[in-house]
Amino acid sequence: MTALPTLEPATTPARCAPTGRPVLGAEAARQKALVFKALADPNRLRLLSIVKGEPSGESCVCDLTEPLGLGQPTVSHHLKILVDAGLLHREKRGTWAYYSLVPGALDDVSGILAKL
Amino acid sequence: MTALPTLEPATTPARCAPTGRPVLGAEAARQKALVFKALADPNRLRLLSIVKGEPSGESCVCDLTEPLGLGQPTVSHHLKILVDAGLLHREKRGTWAYYSLVPGALDDVSGILAKL
Repeated sequence: MTALPTLEPATTPARCAPTGRPVLGAEAARQKALVFKALADPNRLRLLSIVKGEPSGESCVCDLTEPLGLGQPTVSHHLKILVDAGLLHREKRGTWAYYSLVPGALDDVSGILAKL
Repeated sequence: MTALPTLEPATTPARCAPTGRPVLGAEAARQKALVFKALADPNRLRLLSIVKGEPSGESCVCDLTEPLGLGQPTVSHHLKILVDAGLLHREKRGTWAYYSLVPGALDDVSGILAKL
């Protein structure tokens, strides 16, 4: 069986992108922006700092309200955003929820920046 | 001259912060959140990607509108946010402005995450 020669031109027409290098696609950029939205809030950075600095590796939500001077509903709202962004892991035990850093999550964010 | 013994108790009253470890301060967190706000937008991530991938190290604003499919005022608005956040350097030459990555700026953002 012989391959037929293609009728399409071998080169695609040049577009305005000056160098033809790959551009971060719109959907990929939308996905990557989500984690930066989670980090783009001072209280959420402080929450991450507290959880990261906890020697036991996890923080009870009951210990996170006082250092920030915020009510528990507000703290829980911020924590949910950090969980949804894949930065924190949440585990409910008894009355309280406990939060820990997702291993490698902050390194993954640095990786996004390195590979932009 | 003899130092008088202090009347204040030697220890401060225990507060609710469970371990006494340093917490990222409110003002420091506010400052650090600014750069994540700049990164928290898909179009701005795409602009950084294009500028970073430019072999010459800089991109003319005239070459940044077409790949994003946005008008020049919108692109200029996003570029200003990236410049204000210290991520891009802007140089006006003749009719056009040229943008380049501030050396080390993305590494500095990774450093913020590493030191949270």
